[in-house]
Amino acid sequence: MRNIAAKVNIAQINWKPDKQSIVPMHKQIYDFIKSKIASGDWSIGNRLPTQVEMANAFKVNRSTVLEAYDELKTEGLIESKKSSGTIIVNNTWSVLASKTPPNWDKYIESGYQKPNLNVIKIINELNMDSKMIRLGAGELSPEMYPVQYMKSIYDHMLTDVHYMGYEEAKGLLPLREEVCKYLKPMGIDVNPNKVLIVSGVLQALHLISMGILRRGSTILTEQATYIQSLTLFESHGIHLTGVAMDGEGLVVDDLLRKVSMKKPELLYTIPSFQNPTGILMSDKRRSAILKLCEKERLPILEDDTYRELWLDEAPAAPIKAGDQDETVLYMGSISKSLSAGMRVGWIVGAERVIDRLADIKMQTDYGSSSISQWMCYEFLAKGYYQSFIQSLRGELKIKRDFTLKILEHYFSDIATWQKPAGGFYIWLTLNKEFQMYRLFESCYRQGVVINPGNIYDITSNKNIRISFSYASLEDIEQGLIILARMIKLNLNKH
Amino acid sequence: MRNIAAKVNIAQINWKPDKQSIVPMHKQIYDFIKSKIASGDWSIGNRLPTQVEMANAFKVNRSTVLEAYDELKTEGLIESKKSSGTIIVNNTWSVLASKTPPNWDKYIESGYQKPNLNVIKIINELNMDSKMIRLGAGELSPEMYPVQYMKSIYDHMLTDVHYMGYEEAKGLLPLREEVCKYLKPMGIDVNPNKVLIVSGVLQALHLISMGILRRGSTILTEQATYIQSLTLFESHGIHLTGVAMDGEGLVVDDLLRKVSMKKPELLYTIPSFQNPTGILMSDKRRSAILKLCEKERLPILEDDTYRELWLDEAPAAPIKAGDQDETVLYMGSISKSLSAGMRVGWIVGAERVIDRLADIKMQTDYGSSSISQWMCYEFLAKGYYQSFIQSLRGELKIKRDFTLKILEHYFSDIATWQKPAGGFYIWLTLNKEFQMYRLFESCYRQGVVINPGNIYDITSNKNIRISFSYASLEDIEQGLIILARMIKLNLNKH
Repeated sequence: MRNIAAKVNIAQINWKPDKQSIVPMHKQIYDFIKSKIASGDWSIGNRLPTQVEMANAFKVNRSTVLEAYDELKTEGLIESKKSSGTIIVNNTWSVLASKTPPNWDKYIESGYQKPNLNVIKIINELNMDSKMIRLGAGELSPEMYPVQYMKSIYDHMLTDVHYMGYEEAKGLLPLREEVCKYLKPMGIDVNPNKVLIVSGVLQALHLISMGILRRGSTILTEQATYIQSLTLFESHGIHLTGVAMDGEGLVVDDLLRKVSMKKPELLYTIPSFQNPTGILMSDKRRSAILKLCEKERLPILEDDTYRELWLDEAPAAPIKAGDQDETVLYMGSISKSLSAGMRVGWIVGAERVIDRLADIKMQTDYGSSSISQWMCYEFLAKGYYQSFIQSLRGELKIKRDFTLKILEHYFSDIATWQKPAGGFYIWLTLNKEFQMYRLFESCYRQGVVINPGNIYDITSNKNIRISFSYASLEDIEQGLIILARMIKLNLNKH
Repeated sequence: MRNIAAKVNIAQINWKPDKQSIVPMHKQIYDFIKSKIASGDWSIGNRLPTQVEMANAFKVNRSTVLEAYDELKTEGLIESKKSSGTIIVNNTWSVLASKTPPNWDKYIESGYQKPNLNVIKIINELNMDSKMIRLGAGELSPEMYPVQYMKSIYDHMLTDVHYMGYEEAKGLLPLREEVCKYLKPMGIDVNPNKVLIVSGVLQALHLISMGILRRGSTILTEQATYIQSLTLFESHGIHLTGVAMDGEGLVVDDLLRKVSMKKPELLYTIPSFQNPTGILMSDKRRSAILKLCEKERLPILEDDTYRELWLDEAPAAPIKAGDQDETVLYMGSISKSLSAGMRVGWIVGAERVIDRLADIKMQTDYGSSSISQWMCYEFLAKGYYQSFIQSLRGELKIKRDFTLKILEHYFSDIATWQKPAGGFYIWLTLNKEFQMYRLFESCYRQGVVINPGNIYDITSNKNIRISFSYASLEDIEQGLIILARMIKLNLNKH
């Protein structure tokens, strides 16, 4: 069959590309062949002239013909076979119709930013379903919305805000001044030039990944850590290496070992009520780590998001408080202690680093929302923030203690945990390893969303991060009962 | 001199690295040599044993010694010279002190994101100085702040908002629904799943650069364009190629030529009151461009930020209105027509593209400010937005006409321009070429900030973008008089 395909007679082609046209030659040839196929002049099975024949006939380079043929091949109109030359294989309208949508799938695969972890996407979606019991959610519950202050806040804003245009690159100056006042009693004494307002700590991490780290660099973190659940560093070719923890936080010996082995560019740590383990780093440990990092000239990125949420006693001063040489970049936020939806946080550090990050922020979103910044300013300046946190601590303490009681009752034989001195989280360690995704799935089929521990520590198949901040007491009890049942069901399968 | 430097006697070194220690061998050797220099046992000018001698003495690989020596060299303590071996050259405390700040400069140079254009940084800073006359600022003036609606807006928010936690990836659903209602009369009929709320169009561009374009791809733009002033695409290795414009917008022939030549991935266009030229694309031209892009399967990124700011008559329907095949990604914003500081905009398109961009947004800032989204919702849902724009048009028209009158009076002999039918900008074309940066500088020294045209079109040394939106009438007059004088002064220098 192959060799009897009728060949288009090159001598009968009474057309030539127009060398004066703005349309490139290969495009003209492509259009011509397509029109011949569309009109039916040339049919399926017909063999096209060879590239050399066509190049000679049209007085163009062979590469020009090649380009036209390649495009026709890409569209599935022709095919080249060694034995039989170039054959017309399609003339259906859908292929010939020039009006086809862009190939968006190709675009979606093109960007360098990796998609979010699939589990995280599912968690985010499930968490939007109000029927779900959210045992993993790292945010305050709707009942904790600061409704008692909102009328005063809006009244202040009516009086204080006369304009909402683009702000300074580092953020609203009155807010940065308030942040400085707020940080001073913690031992952090900086001026507003060293403060950048961000839309939460996640954005600060994004700016850092774009602005001050090269591809191939390494960040040390606690062994289980919030930033393991993000793909943003990975997308920029930055590696994360875990450091062992004990009850006082990062283990210094292991930190030293990893510094020597990995030559990291940064140590990321959450010293107060760490996410996800809830561990509070001791004062002594903070000093030892700062000393080591100063000696090694290793910058510390201190994430102090949970500081205000102490439930028994105030945590030790931030590492940043002992920082004489600007070794520490310090991050704080109101997302966990006032409102996640306001999207306000800050990063504090050496001025030239803050300048660099501010410049990048201007290029990515032209600054954070003015209205959020003003509202946060009012909360800080008028003292509402501190009053709110004080009552919040009471509510969270009740929830923590209740959750611990329920765990004691239903989990003693299947898991261990430490009582967290603050924050949102209890880090369950199951007595046996599990297929975490299967457990996660069997829970959400029962209406309970948990955050499996392996999103924070890929090596762990025994941990679950339980959050007591979001769900109501009733939901916590019901959710934990279901979780315990699912664990026992899965245990029996093994 | 060189060869008489005393050599450290290897036989007298009664120390060995500890092979059991967690501290790597090279680090131990480095610490040992440093301590010898610090104690004064070894002095400046002393010659160190060769790497081979030391490797033998310490029973380590030569590469281990090399690593230690390299680190000491980097710190400026020793130097290697061919003729005289490795010499101690420094013993000052500042070099020896292990406690030195991190090398932040190295970090700042490491990130891939390029800094903003220097002129843009200076403009941003100057624009924060209230004494400056801002003739370039692309934002509404403080007098246009919608003060008359704010009390009602806050009252509605007190009633409507009961929680401000993390929002859905695509943004607050009630707002997305309002955006759909708002777009429908323009001929864009979409459901909320095809809408992503962003913190302004700039952020949408950032997400696009991260998420749907590969390195090395090309974006076609109008010859002079807003996005030339950004470094975000360049930072991701994405090229911009300008397409010629006439009074009706992009020139179709040139677009076709550039499509063939450059094989672009995207066409970015601002059809309504283009930034910076102010040109309004005709209805016919919109159709022709959509048809061409559909034929070429080239996605269009339509930036319709200025649409609402028509001053004479409403512009033609968006290109997106004629889009049957999801060729168009459509962007809108309230930044220019209500408040830049609220940081709310939207991008509308094929659902899988919106999904991808929403996922990336979640990874970069966990969604836009809830409070901004609620406020924007109230403005749209309660009809305040449309009333505000209506009065805004009146104010802007007065300012445009006044600016044109001043130009007529002072610029007729030095420049030409078109009357813009809407938007913020008048695109001055000077009669002669200038060193634009020098003109910019001489103006701001006189208290006037202009946006030189070459930040929007690198090939142009004859254009200035004059904005009539921000400065008061008095300032516009005074600023333009100064600008005309500076132009004439600079003219005489040539």
